[in-house]
Amino acid sequence: MIRLGENRYGKSRVRLVRVKRAGDRHDLDEWTVEVLLGGDFSSCFAEGDNSKILPTDTMKNTVYSLARTSSARCIEDFAKELTAFFVNRNPQVTSAEVNISESPWERMVCGGNAQGTAFIQSSRELQTAKVSGGRDGAIEVVAGLDDLLILKTANSAFTGYIKDSLTTLPETRDRLFGTAVSAHWTYASANLPFPALRATVREHLLDAFAGHKSESVQHTLYAMAERVLDKVPEVKDIHLTMPNKHCLLVDLSRFGQDNPNEIFVPIDEPHGYIEARVGRE
Amino acid sequence: MIRLGENRYGKSRVRLVRVKRAGDRHDLDEWTVEVLLGGDFSSCFAEGDNSKILPTDTMKNTVYSLARTSSARCIEDFAKELTAFFVNRNPQVTSAEVNISESPWERMVCGGNAQGTAFIQSSRELQTAKVSGGRDGAIEVVAGLDDLLILKTANSAFTGYIKDSLTTLPETRDRLFGTAVSAHWTYASANLPFPALRATVREHLLDAFAGHKSESVQHTLYAMAERVLDKVPEVKDIHLTMPNKHCLLVDLSRFGQDNPNEIFVPIDEPHGYIEARVGRE
Amino acid sequence: MIRLGENRYGKSRVRLVRVKRAGDRHDLDEWTVEVLLGGDFSSCFAEGDNSKILPTDTMKNTVYSLARTSSARCIEDFAKELTAFFVNRNPQVTSAEVNISESPWERMVCGGNAQGTAFIQSSRELQTAKVSGGRDGAIEVVAGLDDLLILKTANSAFTGYIKDSLTTLPETRDRLFGTAVSAHWTYASANLPFPALRATVREHLLDAFAGHKSESVQHTLYAMAERVLDKVPEVKDIHLTMPNKHCLLVDLSRFGQDNPNEIFVPIDEPHGYIEARVGRE
Amino acid sequence: MIRLGENRYGKSRVRLVRVKRAGDRHDLDEWTVEVLLGGDFSSCFAEGDNSKILPTDTMKNTVYSLARTSSARCIEDFAKELTAFFVNRNPQVTSAEVNISESPWERMVCGGNAQGTAFIQSSRELQTAKVSGGRDGAIEVVAGLDDLLILKTANSAFTGYIKDSLTTLPETRDRLFGTAVSAHWTYASANLPFPALRATVREHLLDAFAGHKSESVQHTLYAMAERVLDKVPEVKDIHLTMPNKHCLLVDLSRFGQDNPNEIFVPIDEPHGYIEARVGRE
Repeated sequence: MIRLGENRYGKSRVRLVRVKRAGDRHDLDEWTVEVLLGGDFSSCFAEGDNSKILPTDTMKNTVYSLARTSSARCIEDFAKELTAFFVNRNPQVTSAEVNISESPWERMVCGGNAQGTAFIQSSRELQTAKVSGGRDGAIEVVAGLDDLLILKTANSAFTGYIKDSLTTLPETRDRLFGTAVSAHWTYASANLPFPALRATVREHLLDAFAGHKSESVQHTLYAMAERVLDKVPEVKDIHLTMPNKHCLLVDLSRFGQDNPNEIFVPIDEPHGYIEARVGRE
Repeated sequence: MIRLGENRYGKSRVRLVRVKRAGDRHDLDEWTVEVLLGGDFSSCFAEGDNSKILPTDTMKNTVYSLARTSSARCIEDFAKELTAFFVNRNPQVTSAEVNISESPWERMVCGGNAQGTAFIQSSRELQTAKVSGGRDGAIEVVAGLDDLLILKTANSAFTGYIKDSLTTLPETRDRLFGTAVSAHWTYASANLPFPALRATVREHLLDAFAGHKSESVQHTLYAMAERVLDKVPEVKDIHLTMPNKHCLLVDLSRFGQDNPNEIFVPIDEPHGYIEARVGRE
Repeated sequence: MIRLGENRYGKSRVRLVRVKRAGDRHDLDEWTVEVLLGGDFSSCFAEGDNSKILPTDTMKNTVYSLARTSSARCIEDFAKELTAFFVNRNPQVTSAEVNISESPWERMVCGGNAQGTAFIQSSRELQTAKVSGGRDGAIEVVAGLDDLLILKTANSAFTGYIKDSLTTLPETRDRLFGTAVSAHWTYASANLPFPALRATVREHLLDAFAGHKSESVQHTLYAMAERVLDKVPEVKDIHLTMPNKHCLLVDLSRFGQDNPNEIFVPIDEPHGYIEARVGRE
Repeated sequence: MIRLGENRYGKSRVRLVRVKRAGDRHDLDEWTVEVLLGGDFSSCFAEGDNSKILPTDTMKNTVYSLARTSSARCIEDFAKELTAFFVNRNPQVTSAEVNISESPWERMVCGGNAQGTAFIQSSRELQTAKVSGGRDGAIEVVAGLDDLLILKTANSAFTGYIKDSLTTLPETRDRLFGTAVSAHWTYASANLPFPALRATVREHLLDAFAGHKSESVQHTLYAMAERVLDKVPEVKDIHLTMPNKHCLLVDLSRFGQDNPNEIFVPIDEPHGYIEARVGRE
């Protein structure tokens, strides 16, 4: 017997720009929204019966319509509104998940003055929010960031690891350590000052990375997670992904030159990959 | 108290080209390998103790060394060898996962003749294998394909769905249905003729898509999964992801023209998203 | 004194799907169109006077409107129609260029039968056309292809090059030679059977690559160009770009293994880059 | 008779990280280098004679070797050194071009303090330099930037354009104007304080964009170019590419809502495309 297992559907990459105008000072947000719904949709899959299906086109319309009336100032709050809207309006839906990522527009600064109506997207780092909710009204908020590119040129070692017949990597007490952090942390509550907390978490991540005496990527990843959990009680747990973006020391002795840890080749592939979730007992 | 949760580490994007030479008839494989290990690595995370850490650089070396001696003819079998190697050689490792994707090189055909030493990579579709194994020797093989771009111009409808104040989508009994299929199926055994099974599964997916009277993406996704499970007993379950890559009918009436389902704008965003796992009772 | 130099404007990435229906046998084309216009637009640049500006939005509308009435069966002919339309209708325009690339949809084959209404996009290779025209009615047609991935495992050497104090590359009479060809050829006339010629040119490129005793990428590039010019009199000249996508032999001696030209690491960066135009005297 | 036309070859994507250490204050540069050489290489193309060919592998080695001894502090100066090196050392080379792009690493700021050994790559904007030189010793330096994402929410109009039977775009005195600027400017001399000039040019581009009463993309592009030429006498000419990244006003009237220029859909395709070179008489 064939059986439908876990399934969900929705709309991805619903892009939205919102401009709030207060005289000649405007606020600009660019958000990309994804809506994913779960429920008992087996008759749609097995029989082609669409009577319980909210079209994904309507989800898209909902994003725009709610954006007009919403007072949300951050992606976490807008994701909460959307999640609640879909659950409340659709009894056939048992769970809704809304993912939003924010493109980082900032005010342009000209001659020292922050402009009211001109913006620049200086960063590639994405701020994200994932809100999930079910019929019981419980809501979970996960905030995050992707593609935070950081690198340290001191206080990074890698020694004491397993050596065997396939080992060629030399030990080092002084290497470059570059990574593209993805961090996603779950809040203990759904009603929090999200923008301030986001800024705080991000600062602790950077600060822990910069100051750590690193024995490995794992060691530093854990120190970053630990710092956030220590300093931000609103965070329940945090998941970090930190690829090791290797910088290889160039052998210049072939040209009669030394290379005192100065000239490196950064490579994209292969790359190390480290991920862990760190929580509270 | 801070607590390390689920974690793993490894090497990603280890790229490998293997040439087997039999006179002037060569065989060419291009594989991209990922190795991910799990185990008790808490002392590495918490204390910077690397004594249980197999460096990811060694994982990379292992891929190349084993590729030289391996008799594997397909990605499933090479992933099995690698998984077993890492588990057997590393008692501190409790689980290993190896992911391989294959770039689709085919023999070049010139003047009707398949060439012995010239190849063309004509397809963008990726063939994948994921093999996971633990200390108990049990191994799970998941084969798959990504980015299978298919489209049908007939026998696709979408009607009978929920209408509400945010609905603007018109019903249609005749629409274009394009998608980029990701399919990943789990085998009931780890010892099977994988290349032949892969070809069979792929054929059934295409055949079911082409022939289906579709009432929705969900409806067709399920029919494709059902067909595979019906026809290929070696498959235990299958997971399908099928984004709805919309083609919008252009309104030509503004220019005094009709448009009898002929001229469309394909869009990448937003797109519908449908995923489901289908298995056996 | 500030002076406006060369300039042009237009619309890029106008995407179009066209379905022609003859009973249950449909034809499907997916084309991406770019329109670029030149002319005396200095009053627009310098004074903000838009009176000579055809909006790029109207260019987009034109693509869709003409697609409905066009009898063009290939991208070269549709590009010619569009170019003529813009020049004829806009006296302020002195030159128009239309670029079209075609996504390679093919009929799905199920159980040996080519389907009438189901399609698969199996290839990543893009077919392109560039048509330029001016007020004098002269038209130039350049056909091309991009991202043709080919590789040969025999008959490729690289020896006899300059050696100096910075040389580390060993000579070899047997290397892998992989590349991603971009080829763009100019026709001697604008009225030709373009689809048949395209197939012929492509065949000669592949055939020359497969059979060549290569002393370098340059050597093979030239042989491919020469073959096309020898065999296809309708081609006036051809421009080829052939990056050298290196495959590095892995040193397995560190693990006590030999590597008789069997195990390689393909790398994307750095890569060699070779380009040349070859024409007729 | 077949004839070899314009041609060149070289090495692309040679990636380099350089760390300069002064106690616990390090400087970090990440540069991606391309070397392209021209000359009489016809015997290589036509006959497979490599005796005049400097291998692209040697070019790569050269980049690393020179990086170790170079005192260049910016990409313009390092590109000049490389260009001169290749021309001086290779009599068969008649022209050399070196392109470098710089990844924008900045010092991490923790608790208000700029870190000495920790860096963050916050921006996606690329700084570029192109230096070309020939046997006569003349050198041309073109500095540039790519992917400068800017958007203004006021003082942008588009009216007074051509209307015809294919026009559907409404005129507007108040639209969003977003673009991804590519700017490349040629210096009048090869010996200049490039980093300071780069900063100045960039500031003028932003300032002109922010303050302009725009009647079209062309109008603003010209104002930006004019400003640079007015204010920076060292710049001989400037080439700007400014795609029009459209933000479409969402029609919320279908849901009984107004939309006073507040909710937009940003789209990537299609997009307007405007390019112009502006110089001096």
